[in-house]
Amino acid sequence: MTICKEKIKVIAFDADDTLWESENYFLEIEKSFVELMSNYISSEKISSKLFNTEMSNLKLFGYGAKGFTLSMIETAIKISNSQVSADEITQILNLGKSLLSIPIKLIDDVKETLDILKHKYKLVVATKGDLLDQENKLKRSGLIGYFHHIEIMTNKREENYKALIHHLDITAEEFLMIGNSLKSDILPVTNIGGQAAHIPFHITWEHEKIDEAKLLKNFINLKTIKDILKYIN
Amino acid sequence: MTICKEKIKVIAFDADDTLWESENYFLEIEKSFVELMSNYISSEKISSKLFNTEMSNLKLFGYGAKGFTLSMIETAIKISNSQVSADEITQILNLGKSLLSIPIKLIDDVKETLDILKHKYKLVVATKGDLLDQENKLKRSGLIGYFHHIEIMTNKREENYKALIHHLDITAEEFLMIGNSLKSDILPVTNIGGQAAHIPFHITWEHEKIDEAKLLKNFINLKTIKDILKYIN
Repeated sequence: MTICKEKIKVIAFDADDTLWESENYFLEIEKSFVELMSNYISSEKISSKLFNTEMSNLKLFGYGAKGFTLSMIETAIKISNSQVSADEITQILNLGKSLLSIPIKLIDDVKETLDILKHKYKLVVATKGDLLDQENKLKRSGLIGYFHHIEIMTNKREENYKALIHHLDITAEEFLMIGNSLKSDILPVTNIGGQAAHIPFHITWEHEKIDEAKLLKNFINLKTIKDILKYIN
Repeated sequence: MTICKEKIKVIAFDADDTLWESENYFLEIEKSFVELMSNYISSEKISSKLFNTEMSNLKLFGYGAKGFTLSMIETAIKISNSQVSADEITQILNLGKSLLSIPIKLIDDVKETLDILKHKYKLVVATKGDLLDQENKLKRSGLIGYFHHIEIMTNKREENYKALIHHLDITAEEFLMIGNSLKSDILPVTNIGGQAAHIPFHITWEHEKIDEAKLLKNFINLKTIKDILKYIN
């Protein structure tokens, strides 16, 4: 499988773990949470309890650091049998706040690649998460000037991409999505006739994992972002 | 002051307390919070402590129910001198969740007014708050079909309106904003040369209050949303 470079008009980039590192910060915060709670139950159980709480709150909270923080607090109360102290809750609140002000560490070659692509294509960002947090991260990244449009989406399902493509006033095949999540960045795009390039990040959030063996390979795989230039420069 | 109906191409509506009731739900939740915390300090102080926490978190959390819930938890810990119990925190979490699933009560004549305006103008929504929550409220409202575009903004300052107007591909004077907040819906719009109509709601959040005596009256005042038809139908 390759991609059809002649048709591409807009290239959309996922942000977290595609333009900059994100999941490792969530994991660090989760590790601190597990340590904080390890007096109450075994460490192994804490992460799975947290994940279950996150999933059951997803419809109400959506993606992002604020909902994650509320889910950590809820989980702390559950696993401690309501014995968690106010001081421990304060530590969880502070963990959440630190997630909202993480330093932005760009992934290798992102800037150089955007510098080349911006001359030929309209570039956009398509990301999930808390509105203000994602906007703030983009500002801190120094990348905002590369992008014609920033789409912060409540979800990355086929209907969300259809709406984005409609909004960009192009057809699906004129749209190339680049991202690290097969589930969120690649499959919904190829399912609606768009083009896609997958760049795995070394960590994948449990919720984004899928069985790769079953996939139709109608997208390209890249090792790093600059490899896209071999296909479309 | 009147408005120039010949120039209007897009009418933007604020959502909370303009299309549907919102602030009264926040006040109800705050009232429950005050009751819950009234064992620790006097009721009068609780609201002002909560407001102060909200304001100091605003830059990090932005507007919306999730940040409000995190601020309630932080306030509860502060005013109880870390004596608040896990069960009380659970009650606060539940108050926050109930805010994310409030019933949508449309304000009188909203639907009838939109039904008339949709034939002549492009209608959009311009609202602050949590992304998923605002989208969910719009879906529950049954109004989504009226709107050509939904803009969920991190803030409603002049630069945010400039970006929206640019995005809509119109000039400022072709833009009419209708909303209940002088500070967020009216002044930033008239300051950049847009048109605006103010419809006061019977409750105004402390953060949105301004000194009306100092205002240039370069916008129109309406009693109810259907009064706009006298100007532009």
